[in-house]
Amino acid sequence: MNFDALRPLLDDICARMAAMPDRGTVASYIPELACIDPARFAMSICLPDGRQISVGDAKVEFSIQSVSKVFTLAIALGRYGDRFWSRVGREPSTHVFNSVQELEAREGIPPNPFVNSGAIATTDSLLVGATPKETLAEIVRFMRQAASDDAIFIDPQVAASEKETGDRNWALAYFLRSCGNLRHDCALTLGTYFHHCALAMTCEQLARAGRFLAGIHPDGNLIAPGHIRSINALMMTCGHYNGSGEFAYRVGVPAKSGVGGGILAVLPNRASIAVWSPGLDRYGNSLLGTQALEILSQDLGLSMFSITPGIGPSRI
Amino acid sequence: MNFDALRPLLDDICARMAAMPDRGTVASYIPELACIDPARFAMSICLPDGRQISVGDAKVEFSIQSVSKVFTLAIALGRYGDRFWSRVGREPSTHVFNSVQELEAREGIPPNPFVNSGAIATTDSLLVGATPKETLAEIVRFMRQAASDDAIFIDPQVAASEKETGDRNWALAYFLRSCGNLRHDCALTLGTYFHHCALAMTCEQLARAGRFLAGIHPDGNLIAPGHIRSINALMMTCGHYNGSGEFAYRVGVPAKSGVGGGILAVLPNRASIAVWSPGLDRYGNSLLGTQALEILSQDLGLSMFSITPGIGPSRI
Amino acid sequence: MNFDALRPLLDDICARMAAMPDRGTVASYIPELACIDPARFAMSICLPDGRQISVGDAKVEFSIQSVSKVFTLAIALGRYGDRFWSRVGREPSTHVFNSVQELEAREGIPPNPFVNSGAIATTDSLLVGATPKETLAEIVRFMRQAASDDAIFIDPQVAASEKETGDRNWALAYFLRSCGNLRHDCALTLGTYFHHCALAMTCEQLARAGRFLAGIHPDGNLIAPGHIRSINALMMTCGHYNGSGEFAYRVGVPAKSGVGGGILAVLPNRASIAVWSPGLDRYGNSLLGTQALEILSQDLGLSMFSITPGIGPSRI
Amino acid sequence: MNFDALRPLLDDICARMAAMPDRGTVASYIPELACIDPARFAMSICLPDGRQISVGDAKVEFSIQSVSKVFTLAIALGRYGDRFWSRVGREPSTHVFNSVQELEAREGIPPNPFVNSGAIATTDSLLVGATPKETLAEIVRFMRQAASDDAIFIDPQVAASEKETGDRNWALAYFLRSCGNLRHDCALTLGTYFHHCALAMTCEQLARAGRFLAGIHPDGNLIAPGHIRSINALMMTCGHYNGSGEFAYRVGVPAKSGVGGGILAVLPNRASIAVWSPGLDRYGNSLLGTQALEILSQDLGLSMFSITPGIGPSRI
Repeated sequence: MNFDALRPLLDDICARMAAMPDRGTVASYIPELACIDPARFAMSICLPDGRQISVGDAKVEFSIQSVSKVFTLAIALGRYGDRFWSRVGREPSTHVFNSVQELEAREGIPPNPFVNSGAIATTDSLLVGATPKETLAEIVRFMRQAASDDAIFIDPQVAASEKETGDRNWALAYFLRSCGNLRHDCALTLGTYFHHCALAMTCEQLARAGRFLAGIHPDGNLIAPGHIRSINALMMTCGHYNGSGEFAYRVGVPAKSGVGGGILAVLPNRASIAVWSPGLDRYGNSLLGTQALEILSQDLGLSMFSITPGIGPSRI
Repeated sequence: MNFDALRPLLDDICARMAAMPDRGTVASYIPELACIDPARFAMSICLPDGRQISVGDAKVEFSIQSVSKVFTLAIALGRYGDRFWSRVGREPSTHVFNSVQELEAREGIPPNPFVNSGAIATTDSLLVGATPKETLAEIVRFMRQAASDDAIFIDPQVAASEKETGDRNWALAYFLRSCGNLRHDCALTLGTYFHHCALAMTCEQLARAGRFLAGIHPDGNLIAPGHIRSINALMMTCGHYNGSGEFAYRVGVPAKSGVGGGILAVLPNRASIAVWSPGLDRYGNSLLGTQALEILSQDLGLSMFSITPGIGPSRI
Repeated sequence: MNFDALRPLLDDICARMAAMPDRGTVASYIPELACIDPARFAMSICLPDGRQISVGDAKVEFSIQSVSKVFTLAIALGRYGDRFWSRVGREPSTHVFNSVQELEAREGIPPNPFVNSGAIATTDSLLVGATPKETLAEIVRFMRQAASDDAIFIDPQVAASEKETGDRNWALAYFLRSCGNLRHDCALTLGTYFHHCALAMTCEQLARAGRFLAGIHPDGNLIAPGHIRSINALMMTCGHYNGSGEFAYRVGVPAKSGVGGGILAVLPNRASIAVWSPGLDRYGNSLLGTQALEILSQDLGLSMFSITPGIGPSRI
Repeated sequence: MNFDALRPLLDDICARMAAMPDRGTVASYIPELACIDPARFAMSICLPDGRQISVGDAKVEFSIQSVSKVFTLAIALGRYGDRFWSRVGREPSTHVFNSVQELEAREGIPPNPFVNSGAIATTDSLLVGATPKETLAEIVRFMRQAASDDAIFIDPQVAASEKETGDRNWALAYFLRSCGNLRHDCALTLGTYFHHCALAMTCEQLARAGRFLAGIHPDGNLIAPGHIRSINALMMTCGHYNGSGEFAYRVGVPAKSGVGGGILAVLPNRASIAVWSPGLDRYGNSLLGTQALEILSQDLGLSMFSITPGIGPSRI
């Protein structure tokens, strides 16, 4: 990607998104999130040469919510390796992100680590041998190193807000526990889960935090290359809940969304991208964030599934 | 991919597969397929420079079955463009490949074009304005051009075998019809469907037939680049039925399997690969075919989700 | 039940039903049924003393459709006894009457003999050792004896109408067959099924035909008392598809509905009742037929679940 | 029912049950219940004339568990009448008694008041305007009056045991709450629920407590006759979870089971019956309790679906 050509393209996308009449619906089930201005929009791209380019509200913090699941998975894979997969599956889901139905049909094994049930099980695995405080400290530390920025914090009000209203997540946690797939008290695990979901980050920080998955982190590999490959694969097939097939079709890169309206997208060896627009589509993914990534992907041919014109032998 | 380095690697994979004690289960529900020797194995790779390298029984014909769905989708997208998607979805499935359950839950819209219901609807769309004979002729013609080989035929015995025993497919066709998502008589559509599934091809032919999806076909693009991208995306998220997440995790490239034991894998701009081993895993995908692709992918770093060592700025 | 008191009550119900603005929706998926006048209404009651009382269009023929399933089950139980239950379950269903979903979840064993899948399997069992013609002759013969009326016939136009449009039933038949739970060709079994569903009867005839289930048939028991008990139990828990719980709650007697708008209700030792109103509710049961039975049941205390005032010891 | 003829019959049933090799499996998920002796057996019958006949361990207390749901429903119907049904359905279920799946598919409206989700919602409704203590006092008071026995208590150890291990019930409560179908804190509602499930009663007490549903209570009607009819209907179609159809088929009377191994059966105007055998079948219903009721029903022709020999006109 040519850095200089990116600027006008991002400016254009930003302008088009500002003009969009349908901005989706801001998540209302977490009271603290419900008051976010739906007009917010930001995008930020990190390149292999270390440069970063951003547009819009890229320095405004938002709640990364489920995007944090990428990072907890990274830590869990680092700690447990393949043993981690005894507790969580690797297949896309067909129900809503907080479905208990799919968990019951699978007898307590979440379909993948990116739906709520799977992420709760992941958080639970991180609590083995550590207090919630220590675990959260580890997550924040990892995030800060990933983003090369110590000014990343958990928003306690958002965490508290979800703790009080996250009944569906409590249902998931108790269901996991009834199947023997939760080792700790639901309150302990969910308390930790709600807190890491409440990480507040700017689009710039999030794009930088995702560099390690693109293999372009200044500190080298924060986790084993095999785990990077695993996480990217899961982001491709499961990163947008039951809208993952659609996202792969439209954008064609590994990505993870959060109900705060953020999306982290990864282009191995090429870039990490963060986008933020608070309004959601019916699957719970950022409506304009997806559209912005789709335009960017089409304009730059970023989809992994694209062919580059003029490769074949006939054209030599 | 270095052509000369591929030969010893493929020979090694071929030898390892020959020694595998668990070869999966040969599909028994199509009588003509049940008598295939489970010891068969073949692999063939086409490169951008036009060269092709093969090992094992790469000149032995097998029934490509559901791999044909990639080619009927290509023709349907060429004919209908985005209108095609009014009849078929683009999301992975969580039930078995011939499930009616998922079709009923989605009110007659198949989850994607690669499960049986979706492929039957695709075939049905091709029959608009054409007889089954003309449609099959078009499919065979497309396949021959794709493979640059006129010696590709439909095996009438396999087609007849499935026609007599394919009760579950009849159930799917009638269900589609009851929802208004089948325009023709079930017998007409299924007759055509069973015949294109009964295409007999060698691994060499199949690898060549897949080149257009990798953008390395000698005739240039057989279909629009946008449709290539679409098909590859769907192969990634839906190409292995309810085992698609697992395949993406293990192998990491777009691919489509068939119950004949064949798999066609696509590496955009880099290669098209066909593999054949008749024994299937519990999802109906080739057991050793997947393992062979996994080894190849790991050894050559083919997964789209891998990072290449030494890309990042810290290593400059 | 006092015969003389019934007349004014039935007249009143008939008048109230005539005034009902919401008459439900006449089944449209069988073209021959779609043209029935929704204003039709009839009710007929047979008493133990042999007398019968009727109101409304009780001498007008209608298609009994799924009410015929009671009679095919009676014949099948007579022929196979408990062995019959190896092919069909005895539990209520939670999906629509022609659901394949539930059949797939139960691996080809229909939940009960009164949903379509179960009735198709029942018909299939009757075809063992007999041609469709012989089987239909047996069913008609049974029905005529039950009704003490030789003027009962199958309406060939309705049978043909369903044969052409009954795609969902074909899906069910093929699904059963794919699970090994259909012994004959789908066309053979469904042809027979569509024909017995196309039995044309008047409300008077249907009420008389149901007497054997109430134990008040002039010829004594047409089938073993144990089978009568079984059928009545199934009518109670499964006779109104996924609206069976509601019917038991509101009316409280064993009954079976048909999409032609007929309902046969049984009061063991007391009465058999037929009602007809063509408009259906969302479950596919006669809307006004149910309401008429509810009023009758409440006025006469017919529900099996009612207590009779003044029975207990404190009131002696 | 002839009182004198009952004694030898009950003695015979008791002896046969004592000799049964397969006694089912004692519920293990509530630790306090797991240590119950599976050899226990008791049966008790109350007749309209006020007499009661019992066999076996009829004076030994057991945990009535879900049988209590009949009584909480009685109280709730008395308080809310038809408004109660806005929160709970009236249809049988097809999944296990503590399924969340079915609740999610129905968007938070439990299928009926006798599966766990429905009973939790019922308990929640009783807490409106009352503390848990007051509500439990009301339930115990109702039970004592129903049984004409003040020596009925809640077993605090069983209640505590379930409170600690009832994770699936917590999942159900939180799920209800996430759908807006739980008014109180989960802890408040579940605490009350676990306590009324922990009512300890003898078979003699339970049979007497059920008399009001048969209309043979010495104090007359404890609740409105219409509500008695409603409860009996629901016991018939939903009283044995997803084994309700089977129970209706085999025994043919309204009844409610509990995982403590108790069953309360109601014969309107004729008798109330309690049976106890701790071992459960795969649905969570008492294995031998059902068998004992089946023998009793067959020997005495108790099934509501039976015809009485010699009723019909031909036999006059």
